[in-house]
Amino acid sequence: MQMDGTANPQAERLIQAKGESLFALMQKYPQAGIFSKKGAYARIMDWSMKDPVFKTQLFRFVDVLPSLQSSTEIVRHLQEYLGDKAVELNPALKAGLAASSFAPALVAAPVKAQIVDMAGQFVAARTGDELIKQIKKNASLGIATTIDLLGEAVINAAEADVFLERNLEILNSISRYFEKERTPCFSDLGAQGCLPRLNLSIKISALTPDVHPADPEDSIKALKNRLRPILRRASEVGAFINFDMESYKLKDLTLDLFKSIFTEEEFITQPAIGIAIQAYLRESEHDLKELIAWARKYSRPISVRLVKGAYWDSETILAQQKAWPIPVWQKKPESDANYEKLSILLLDNSDIITANFASHNVRSCAHAIVQAEARGIDPKAYEFQALYGMADELKAALVQSGHRVREYCPVGELLPGMAYLVRRLLENTSNEGFLRIKDRNEATTYQLLANPLTHIASAHEPLKQPEAAAGAFVNAANTDYTLRSSREKQLADLNDVPKLFGAKWPVIINGKRITDRTLISSVNPAKPSQVIGYYAKATREDAELAVKTARAAFLSWSKIPVEKRCEILFNAASIMEQRRFELNAWEVYEAGKPWIEADADISEAIDFCRYYATEIKKLQVPTVTQHVPGEKCTQSWTPRGVGVAIAPWNFPLAILTGLVVAPLVAGNAVIIKPAEQTVGVGMLLMEILTQAGVPDGVLSFIPGSGEEVGAYLVAHKDIDFIAFTGSRDVGCKIWETAGKVSPQQANLKKVVCEMGGKNALIIDNDADLDEAVPAALYSAFGFSGQKCSALSRLIVLDEVYERFVERFVAACATYKVGDPVHPGTMIGPVIDEQAKHKISELIESGKREATCVYQGSVPTEGYFVPPTVFTEPKLNARIIKEEIFGPVVSIIKVKTLTEAFNLVNDCEYALTGGLFSRSPKALERAISEMQVGNLYLNRSITGAMVERHPFGGYKMSGGGTKAGGNEYLQNFLFPKSIVENVLRRGFTPVETS
Amino acid sequence: MQMDGTANPQAERLIQAKGESLFALMQKYPQAGIFSKKGAYARIMDWSMKDPVFKTQLFRFVDVLPSLQSSTEIVRHLQEYLGDKAVELNPALKAGLAASSFAPALVAAPVKAQIVDMAGQFVAARTGDELIKQIKKNASLGIATTIDLLGEAVINAAEADVFLERNLEILNSISRYFEKERTPCFSDLGAQGCLPRLNLSIKISALTPDVHPADPEDSIKALKNRLRPILRRASEVGAFINFDMESYKLKDLTLDLFKSIFTEEEFITQPAIGIAIQAYLRESEHDLKELIAWARKYSRPISVRLVKGAYWDSETILAQQKAWPIPVWQKKPESDANYEKLSILLLDNSDIITANFASHNVRSCAHAIVQAEARGIDPKAYEFQALYGMADELKAALVQSGHRVREYCPVGELLPGMAYLVRRLLENTSNEGFLRIKDRNEATTYQLLANPLTHIASAHEPLKQPEAAAGAFVNAANTDYTLRSSREKQLADLNDVPKLFGAKWPVIINGKRITDRTLISSVNPAKPSQVIGYYAKATREDAELAVKTARAAFLSWSKIPVEKRCEILFNAASIMEQRRFELNAWEVYEAGKPWIEADADISEAIDFCRYYATEIKKLQVPTVTQHVPGEKCTQSWTPRGVGVAIAPWNFPLAILTGLVVAPLVAGNAVIIKPAEQTVGVGMLLMEILTQAGVPDGVLSFIPGSGEEVGAYLVAHKDIDFIAFTGSRDVGCKIWETAGKVSPQQANLKKVVCEMGGKNALIIDNDADLDEAVPAALYSAFGFSGQKCSALSRLIVLDEVYERFVERFVAACATYKVGDPVHPGTMIGPVIDEQAKHKISELIESGKREATCVYQGSVPTEGYFVPPTVFTEPKLNARIIKEEIFGPVVSIIKVKTLTEAFNLVNDCEYALTGGLFSRSPKALERAISEMQVGNLYLNRSITGAMVERHPFGGYKMSGGGTKAGGNEYLQNFLFPKSIVENVLRRGFTPVETS
Repeated sequence: MQMDGTANPQAERLIQAKGESLFALMQKYPQAGIFSKKGAYARIMDWSMKDPVFKTQLFRFVDVLPSLQSSTEIVRHLQEYLGDKAVELNPALKAGLAASSFAPALVAAPVKAQIVDMAGQFVAARTGDELIKQIKKNASLGIATTIDLLGEAVINAAEADVFLERNLEILNSISRYFEKERTPCFSDLGAQGCLPRLNLSIKISALTPDVHPADPEDSIKALKNRLRPILRRASEVGAFINFDMESYKLKDLTLDLFKSIFTEEEFITQPAIGIAIQAYLRESEHDLKELIAWARKYSRPISVRLVKGAYWDSETILAQQKAWPIPVWQKKPESDANYEKLSILLLDNSDIITANFASHNVRSCAHAIVQAEARGIDPKAYEFQALYGMADELKAALVQSGHRVREYCPVGELLPGMAYLVRRLLENTSNEGFLRIKDRNEATTYQLLANPLTHIASAHEPLKQPEAAAGAFVNAANTDYTLRSSREKQLADLNDVPKLFGAKWPVIINGKRITDRTLISSVNPAKPSQVIGYYAKATREDAELAVKTARAAFLSWSKIPVEKRCEILFNAASIMEQRRFELNAWEVYEAGKPWIEADADISEAIDFCRYYATEIKKLQVPTVTQHVPGEKCTQSWTPRGVGVAIAPWNFPLAILTGLVVAPLVAGNAVIIKPAEQTVGVGMLLMEILTQAGVPDGVLSFIPGSGEEVGAYLVAHKDIDFIAFTGSRDVGCKIWETAGKVSPQQANLKKVVCEMGGKNALIIDNDADLDEAVPAALYSAFGFSGQKCSALSRLIVLDEVYERFVERFVAACATYKVGDPVHPGTMIGPVIDEQAKHKISELIESGKREATCVYQGSVPTEGYFVPPTVFTEPKLNARIIKEEIFGPVVSIIKVKTLTEAFNLVNDCEYALTGGLFSRSPKALERAISEMQVGNLYLNRSITGAMVERHPFGGYKMSGGGTKAGGNEYLQNFLFPKSIVENVLRRGFTPVETS
Repeated sequence: MQMDGTANPQAERLIQAKGESLFALMQKYPQAGIFSKKGAYARIMDWSMKDPVFKTQLFRFVDVLPSLQSSTEIVRHLQEYLGDKAVELNPALKAGLAASSFAPALVAAPVKAQIVDMAGQFVAARTGDELIKQIKKNASLGIATTIDLLGEAVINAAEADVFLERNLEILNSISRYFEKERTPCFSDLGAQGCLPRLNLSIKISALTPDVHPADPEDSIKALKNRLRPILRRASEVGAFINFDMESYKLKDLTLDLFKSIFTEEEFITQPAIGIAIQAYLRESEHDLKELIAWARKYSRPISVRLVKGAYWDSETILAQQKAWPIPVWQKKPESDANYEKLSILLLDNSDIITANFASHNVRSCAHAIVQAEARGIDPKAYEFQALYGMADELKAALVQSGHRVREYCPVGELLPGMAYLVRRLLENTSNEGFLRIKDRNEATTYQLLANPLTHIASAHEPLKQPEAAAGAFVNAANTDYTLRSSREKQLADLNDVPKLFGAKWPVIINGKRITDRTLISSVNPAKPSQVIGYYAKATREDAELAVKTARAAFLSWSKIPVEKRCEILFNAASIMEQRRFELNAWEVYEAGKPWIEADADISEAIDFCRYYATEIKKLQVPTVTQHVPGEKCTQSWTPRGVGVAIAPWNFPLAILTGLVVAPLVAGNAVIIKPAEQTVGVGMLLMEILTQAGVPDGVLSFIPGSGEEVGAYLVAHKDIDFIAFTGSRDVGCKIWETAGKVSPQQANLKKVVCEMGGKNALIIDNDADLDEAVPAALYSAFGFSGQKCSALSRLIVLDEVYERFVERFVAACATYKVGDPVHPGTMIGPVIDEQAKHKISELIESGKREATCVYQGSVPTEGYFVPPTVFTEPKLNARIIKEEIFGPVVSIIKVKTLTEAFNLVNDCEYALTGGLFSRSPKALERAISEMQVGNLYLNRSITGAMVERHPFGGYKMSGGGTKAGGNEYLQNFLFPKSIVENVLRRGFTPVETS
C-alpha cells in the first residue's frame, strides 16, 4: 500500500494515551454474558477458532437452520455437518451427535433454541415494540440508535413492496414513539443541537429487484421510484436516512443514486442524509473526495459513516473468480491505515461533513478523537457507531469520555436473520478481527494501539492465491460493465459496427476469397429488416477443393514446430482481446446476444485459443510410460490429418473457435463450416486466425448449407475427423455417416459430437432460495434459453415448492425482454423465424399439458418469444421431454430427492444439471446419482468456463467428450508408443530424464 | 550377502603383506604406453570418467564404427554422437567436430585409425602368425597363453561352420608351432611337469545357432555335434580346451553340456579340460560344488577358471526387464568376497581341480596365494590368468614371485572385435573396477587390499531400481524355462490338460449354464483330429437375454465400490498366476502357441487385470480441474453401461481379458463373445472371473458366430460400447453398424476397434546385424506370424542389404517348425484350414510377384504353413499390400532412409514398425516420420507389454486407442465435471485438498 504520510510521533503518543484511557474505561464496563468466557457461545467460538473445519461446518449448519422444517431435518443436517470425518469433535459433542438419531426432537429443539438465542445476541429486535425497548435502553445509556431492517434478499417486486412497506411502517411507528418520548438522549445532541433522533439505514439491494449494475440508468430510475416514498416520509417525520454500502458491484450505483436523487427538487434540502464509505475499498478515498465535492457543490451537509467493510472475503473471492482487479485492500492493516486517512479527510471537511466513525477498533476510535482534538473540533460534531450486541464496553467507554455513540440495530425475525448472524460469527472468529485479538489477548495493548502503517509490511494476505505458474493457462476476464469506461467502449462499438453491415462474405480456400456464388443474407434477429451481411454459399465443388487443399497443407502444417502453432493461437487470442467490444457488438447484432452473453462468448473463444495452446505444449512432451532398465519407453501424439468443424450459431465465436483451434493447434488442417445464421462472426474468426498467422490452405472457410456441403464433407473419404456441436438430429446423422468406411479411406473417422440437453435443476427443501431463485432464473432465461446447457426442468421438493414457485414466478418479470443493444436486456430475440415458430408451438403444447403460470410480453418486431413458466406438467409432456431451446421452463413438484434424481435421469439427454441443497449428503448423492455431463451444485447450471468446467455430456447430448477439458486435444491426435532398446553391448546410458 | 565365516585377522595380515609385496613388484614393471597418463587413450578414458554422457556417446560411436563404410558416414556418426547437446565437449574436440563436415576424409581416417589402434591394445592378434608372435613374446616373459577367437555372433549354420573351421585351424597351426618350438616357458610347467601348452577357450554361443535355452536336450545335441571335431582335434594335438562362460541364460546349458560330453566314451579321459565359473553369480558356489562332485565321480581332473564375470550390467538389466530374480550379486564386494570363498573351495580340492585365478584384482590374487600357502599347495599347482593388454605389471609381479601366469589372448579382426573393445573400455571406466581405482589413486593400498567383506555394508548397487511405490503396477514375470523346474511343471500340465478334452462349454447368462444348443468342436491346429472341446453355439435369443440381464446387472455393479471391483480383478490375476502352466497348456493345444508365446499371453492377461485395476483407482479420484476461490471444480468418471467384447483367437486369453476386464472394472456389464477358434480358453477366462467374484449377470458368455450373435449385439440399441480386436473387415463393419443410432438408443456407441497391420522393419546401413537379424526373425516368424504386430515387410538399406539378407535367410532354418508341445518349437501351425489356405494362396501369389529365397519344410499333419522369405517384390504385390497373418516376410531394398520411410507409410495400416540403426538422427527421424502406432527402435517389433508399451495403431489398424495404456479405461467411461459453489454467506471453507 502506498499510504502517503508517515506516522507523526507526537500524534502516535497521544493516540496511545487516548487508547489506553479507553481501554481502562472499557475494563469498568465488562462485556455481558455472551462474550464472557462461559456459556455455549463462548465455547463454540473457541472451538471454531481452534478447528477451521468445525467452524465451516458449524457456520454452514447455522446458515441452513432457518430452512429446516422438522426436528428430524435439524438432526440430520447437524449430523451431516458435524459428523463429517474431517471435523475434530469434542467427545461430548460427538456422543451427543451419535445419540441424536434416537430422539431427534430432544436434540433439535435445544440446538435450535441455542442458535436462535445466539442470533438474538446480534439482532436488536424482532418487532417495532422490541425495537422501541432497545431504543429506550440505549437512550438510558446515552446511546442513540440507527435502524436496519433485516430480511431475505429481494428478488422480485412483491418482496420489494413488502420491504418498502416495512420501512414506511418503521418510520411511522418509531416517529410516533419519538413524538411521545421527547427527551433526547446524550448522543442525540450534536454540536448544533438535537439531531434527528429517528435514524434509518437503507440497503439499495432491498429496494427493488430491478438493479442491473451494467445498466445504471434504468436501475437508478427503478431505485428512485422505490426510494421516493421513503424519503418523503422521512422528510415528513424528520428522520435521518443513511445509505448503507453493500457489495462493490453496487458501489458506484449507490453513489450515483445518492448524488442523483438528492439533487432532485423535492429532496434537495431534506431529509437529513448520510452514506457509508468502506475504507477497505481501494477506491474509497477517491469516492469520498468526490462525495465531499458534491456536498460542497450543492451545499448539502451530509453524514458519512466510515466503516471498514463487511464483505472482504467475498469481494476478494468473486474478483479472483472473475479475474478482475481485487477492489479491497488485501492486508488488514492497509484497510485500517486507509480508515485513518479517510478519518482525517472527514475531519478536515467537518464544516460540511459529519463524520460517523463506525468501528470496533479502539485504535481507529482513538485516532479519530486525537485528530479531531488536534483540529479543535467539538466532540459533539462527530459520532461513533457500533453494532448491536458487540463492543458494548467500547460504547460505554466512548460515552463516558464524552463522545456521541450510535448503535446500529438490526431489526427482524431471527431465523431469516441468520445470514446476519453468520457474518457476525465470522467477524468474531476472524484471525484478524480486532475484537478476537483483544478478547483472546493475542496482542499487547501497545500493539493493538500501534499505527496500522507499521503492521503493513509484515501482514499476510489471508485469501492470497498462489501465482499462476509461468505458462499456465489463465481464463480471460469478462468485461466489467459496472465500469463506465467499459460501457462507453461498448456503446461506441455498437454504434460503429453497423457501418460495416451489408458486406459480402466469401468462401475462402487456400487464401483465395470467392464471392461469385449465391449470396445469402444474415439478419439481426431483433430487427429482421436489418441485414448484417451476405455470405457466398459454398458449393460441393468448393468443399472438394477445400479437402484437397487441406490435405496438401496438412503435410507442412503438421511438421511446423508446435511452439509456432501455439504462438499463432496466442496471437489470435490477443487480437480477440483487442477487438473484444467490436466482436461483442457483432454478436449483439447477428446473434441477438445480450451484452454480457456476447462478452462471455468472446472470453470463451480467447480461452479456447490459449488453453489448447497451453495443453498441446504439455502433450508434445513424450510421457515415460514405465521406467525400464535398458529401454526408453514413451508415448507421444501425432495429428490425425484433415477435419471439418461444424458449429452452431448460439455461441457463434466461442464454439466455432474451440472446434477449429483444438485440431488446428494439434497439427491438423481444418475446414470451417460456420453456422448459417452467424456466418458474419465466423468470417471474423477466419480473418483473425489468418491475421494471427495461420498459413493459407490450413484453414478453409466454407459457409453454406449443412445438409449440402456439411454432409458432403462428413462423408468424404479424405476427412479424418469431424468436430461438431449442434442439434441431436444433425449429430446423429453425422455419427452415422462418419461410421461408414469408404474403400480408400485412410482412417476411421473420429467424431466429436456435442448435441442438445434437457437440463434439470433440483431445489431441495433446505436450499437457499435467495441464491436458488436468481440462479434458476438466469439458467432458464439467460440468452433466451438458447444454450444447450439451459435450464428446462425445475424440480422442486414439496416442502419448499410453494415458497419457491411464488418467489421464482414473481422474479421472472425482473428479466427485461428487448433488443439486446440495450445493456439491461436479459432476454433478447430467438435466432430466427423457424426457432420462434418451433418454440411458440411447444409453448402452445405446454399450455395443453401443463399450467402456464407466467408469460412475459415481447416486442412486436423481431423474433421474440415470451419467457414462459409452466407448473404441474404431465411427466410425458413434450415440454418435459423435448429440447426447447427457448425461454421456457417447467416446474415439477416431487416428494423426495430420489424421485427428483429419477426424473432428472428419465431423460434422453445428459448434459447439465444441478442441485441447490445445503445437505452435504444430498450433494454427495447428486454427484453419484445425477446422470449429467456437467453437474452444478448450488449455482446456475450454465456458463461453463474453459479448463475450470470441462463441458460436454452423454446419452443424446454427446459422445462423452469435454470441450475445454484436458483430454480434448486427444480427439484430434493419435497416440504413438515409442520404445528404444538403449542397451548396446551390455551397457546403457545414464538416465538423463 | 550372507557370506559365512568372518575375516581371520592373521590371514588378513598375511594377505595385506602379500598384496603389498605384489604392489611393490608391480611398481618395478610399470604399465606400457596405453595406460600411461599420456596419449589419446588415456585422455579419452579420462573424459569418459568425468562425463558419463560423453562416455555413452563415445562408446556408442566405437560400437558402430565397424559398420561404417565411408568417411562421410564416420564423420556423420561422430557428429551425431558427440554433437549431442548433452555432451560437454572439450573445446578442441568441439572445434574439430565442427570442422569435420568440411573435410570428412581428413577427420575420418585418423579417428578410425585411433580407435582401431585402441582395439589393437586389447586384441592380441589378427592372424595366426601374429598370435605366434604374441605366444613367443609371452613365453619370453615366462607367461603362458590361452587363445580366444573373436567374431560376430553366430546366428546361422554357415557362420557356425566358419567358426568351427577357425578353431580347427588354430589348433592345427598353433600345435605345429609348438611342435617346432619345444621349450616350455616358465608358466607351462605345472607341479607335475609340463602342462598342455596349447590352450584354447571356447564360447558355446559361437558353436551353433541351434541353442534354445528352454530346450536343453536338443540344444545339447546340436552343440555336441559341433564340439566333437574340436575335442577330437584337441585330443590329437594334446591341447587343453576351456569352456568360457557367457550369459546366465546359457550357464546351466554350458555346465550340462560339459558334464555330458566329457562322460562320452571318446572324451572320458581326454583332452585336458577346464571351465569357467563366474563368482558374480549367486549360484556359482552351488555350481562349483556340483562340478567338483562330478570331477570326483568320474575321477576327471579339470581346471576351473575362476572369474568375476563380465556381463554384470546386462545380467542385471535383463533380469530387471523380465522381473526375474537378478542372478548376480548386486554389490561389487559381494562378488569379490564370493570369489575368495570359491578360491578356497578350489584350493581345498586341489587334488582333482586345478585352480585358474583369473582376476586383475591384487587382493584376490594375494588372497589365493596366502590361502594356497596355508594349505601347503605347490605354487605350480595353480595359475593366474589375465587379459591381453591389461594388468601387465600384475602378470610380471606374479611371475616374479614364482607364480604361473597365463594370458588370455583374443584373436581376430580388429573391426569385428569392436564389441570386445567396448567391454574392455567399460571395465576400465567402471566406477568399481579395481584397475580404475588403483590407477586413479582413488583408494589407499590398505583399502585396496582389505577383505571385501568389510566393504559390503557400505557398497552401493549401481543399477538399483527404485522400489515400486505401494500399489503401483508391476508387470507379471514370464516363466523362465531355462529352469528345469519350470520345464517340468509345463510338461506335467501338457500331459494333464488333454484329460479334460471333449467337454461341452456352455452359453452362460446370469450364472445359468446353457448347453442345449448346437455343439461346435474346437480342435488342436497341430493335430486337427484331436478335439479340444465342444461349445454351445449361442442364438440371437441368448444374445437378447444377455443384454437384458446385463442392463439389470449394470445398475448394481456400477454402484459397487471401485475397490471391490479391483479386488476381483486382483483375484483373477492371482488365479491365472496359480494356473499359469495349465493355461499355457490349453493355449498350446487350442491355439497352437509355442510355450513362450503361450506363457507371454498369460502374463499379459494377468497384467491387464492388475493394470486396469490400478488405473481405475487413479481415475476414481476426482481431478481438480482448476483451483478456483469459492468453487470446488473437479472432473470424475462414470461408467458407460453395457458393452460387448469381441475378441480374436491369436491372443486367446490376453486380448479377451483386456477387452473384458477394462470395461468391467470401470463399472460396466460386459457380454463376452470369444473367438470361435478358442472358445475353450475363453471359457477358462469366464470361469476364472466368476471364481474371482464377478456376480452373476455382470458377465455373460456368448460363444457363437460373429456374423450372427456378434453382429446382433453390435447393432443392439441397449449396447453402449463395443470392445473389439480382430480383422479389418469385421472392424469396419462394426464401426459402421455402431454408427447408426436407433430411435430408443440411450448413448452414442463407443467402439474400441483394433484391427490388422502390415508392419515394416527398416534395417539401416549401420545397424548391428548381430541384433537385427534375430529380432527380425522373431518378429516375422514368432507364433507363425499370427500377430497383428508381426513383421511383414523388411526394408533394408542397400549397403547392408546383401550382408543382411545372407545372414537372415541362413538364419531362418534355425527356427524350428513343428508341434508346439515341443519346447524348442518356434513355428507351430496356423490356426485353421481357412488360414492355411489363405496364407498358402498369398505365398503362391508372392512367388509370381517376388523371388522366394527361403521356404521351410513343415509336418504333413496339422495346419502348417512353411516359413517363407521373399526378396525383390513388386511394390504393389499382394504380399506387400495385404495383411498375411502367417510366417511370410518380404525383403525390400532401398537406397535411402527417406525411401524407407515412404515405403513404411505407403500402407493402409499403421500398427507396428521399427528401425535398426545406430545413427541418433535416423532414430529421431523414425520417431517423427514413421506412421505407426507402436514404434520399436533397435529391437523386435512384437511383444508389447502392458503399461510399458501401450498398444494400438491408426489408419486401418484401429481407432487410435491404446490397450494397456493409461487412457484406455476412458473408453468405457464418461467424464463428469462437477462444480460446487462453496461460497456461502460470503465465506468459504479452508481448502483441505
